[in-house]
Amino acid sequence: MIGAYQASSQARVDAALEPLFQAPAPELERLYAAMRYSVMNGGKRVRPLLAYAACEALDAPAELANGAACAVELIHAYSLVHDDLPAMDDDDLRRGQPTTHKAFDEACAILAGDGLQSLAFGALLDPRLSPQSDSIRLRMVQALSAAAGPAGMVGGQAIDLGSVGVKLDQQALEFMHRHKTGALIEASVRLGALASGQADEQRLQALQVYARAVGLAFQVQDDILDVESDTATLGKRQGADIARDKPTYPALLGLEAAKAYAIELRDQALVAVQGFGESAEPLRALARYIVERRH
Amino acid sequence: MIGAYQASSQARVDAALEPLFQAPAPELERLYAAMRYSVMNGGKRVRPLLAYAACEALDAPAELANGAACAVELIHAYSLVHDDLPAMDDDDLRRGQPTTHKAFDEACAILAGDGLQSLAFGALLDPRLSPQSDSIRLRMVQALSAAAGPAGMVGGQAIDLGSVGVKLDQQALEFMHRHKTGALIEASVRLGALASGQADEQRLQALQVYARAVGLAFQVQDDILDVESDTATLGKRQGADIARDKPTYPALLGLEAAKAYAIELRDQALVAVQGFGESAEPLRALARYIVERRH
Repeated sequence: MIGAYQASSQARVDAALEPLFQAPAPELERLYAAMRYSVMNGGKRVRPLLAYAACEALDAPAELANGAACAVELIHAYSLVHDDLPAMDDDDLRRGQPTTHKAFDEACAILAGDGLQSLAFGALLDPRLSPQSDSIRLRMVQALSAAAGPAGMVGGQAIDLGSVGVKLDQQALEFMHRHKTGALIEASVRLGALASGQADEQRLQALQVYARAVGLAFQVQDDILDVESDTATLGKRQGADIARDKPTYPALLGLEAAKAYAIELRDQALVAVQGFGESAEPLRALARYIVERRH
Repeated sequence: MIGAYQASSQARVDAALEPLFQAPAPELERLYAAMRYSVMNGGKRVRPLLAYAACEALDAPAELANGAACAVELIHAYSLVHDDLPAMDDDDLRRGQPTTHKAFDEACAILAGDGLQSLAFGALLDPRLSPQSDSIRLRMVQALSAAAGPAGMVGGQAIDLGSVGVKLDQQALEFMHRHKTGALIEASVRLGALASGQADEQRLQALQVYARAVGLAFQVQDDILDVESDTATLGKRQGADIARDKPTYPALLGLEAAKAYAIELRDQALVAVQGFGESAEPLRALARYIVERRH
């Protein structure tokens, strides 16, 4: 079931994203091409899916979350472009394709990433993508800015870079992940919920608990897959994190305990949305999928 | 007169900026230190000055534009951090001090720039800095996102990088500057005007004409100073732009014609705000100062 929902979310967000990469002048075509290349790459669109699913869980049509879905995917894409740079993780491949600085050049990749961050905020202001009231849109901008910024995702990347070769305990590892990937996953759910126009504090809090558990489960499973999968399936070098001596859950807990932990987090997520109706089924299916996926 | 106004604007924005660089956790201290280093560097704060002066020109207290002033300065600072990177302009010095990637490292500078962009949007959402109504703040976010993004400043940087060694005509040079520096200068004035709560379309348009002329005058004068000043006064290598074969106004028009053009732009700016009262005096003084400054 999640496969069909994922495919429809992917198609929906890709259709909403595509027009954002029309260069407004010929002089800007290369920059827009680099941004487009960085985003329109067949990505799984997990964050947009979460935004759509959270919006639907509050009984509103998924389309209302188009701006939210675009915004979180644009932030995610920019973070990957910068993360892949030689001065950061120095990756040549992303989903089996040359990374943006390889397909274009480093300067262009830095600027494309910068531009994608601005476009993300723009997506929450574009009335075609975000038809919400001014005060809802402002709350969405607020949530995105906090999640993307130095107290969120960017902070997590800084901690991650500072952790290579450092022995982290589980608490420190989770602090890093809660920032690096968790903040944007929580924002995806929050933005989608806000976009519904039906969010109250109680349900926002339940969805935050859901998102936090799902975000961490996603990371634990990623670490597990990095150990177990081969390069062809994953589209990046197998064991890349371990090779660079980055802290991972299997390294910290052992492989079996890491798997048990992923299951525990899935169950936390399911409990959090227990009080929601049938419309929260996509959120539940995603929580299940995350710990079952093979790539 | 502009000296005193500049000093008070600088003090006001610096006081508003400083609390933004408090790391929320010890793990984030290095990132926040890099962001602080990139911003709290004794900069002239021309963009904040424009935001405050535009707010006052509409007869509102300058303090209302604190969020606007912080936002435009944070965007400006992030653009300099990324612009100085080895893959971009590769500068070691900025205002006579090591650039952020020299004082910290490249990865940290990339992330500090990324974080500063997020903080800029955050400054427009923080009620202590931006006490405006939701709909005004949303218009401010909209203006900032458009000015900072790929159709604005980032686009201008991409064009600039693509222009090294290329012979641009005046139209192409102005297209580049209107994006690279002009968009954020226009946004500074617009955000300040919006922050006043007194902006109507007619006055916003007059201020846009003012800002466009002032922005271009600033650039023309920068090019002139790059030819005429020595390294000590300017804090960067003299003739740096010419050495890298970047297009400049003196190279294109000749030095004397470039100077005459700067004067013409100043007069355009003064005419645009002719209908404004005494409270627009700081805007007028700035337009005069720009073409008289020696650094």
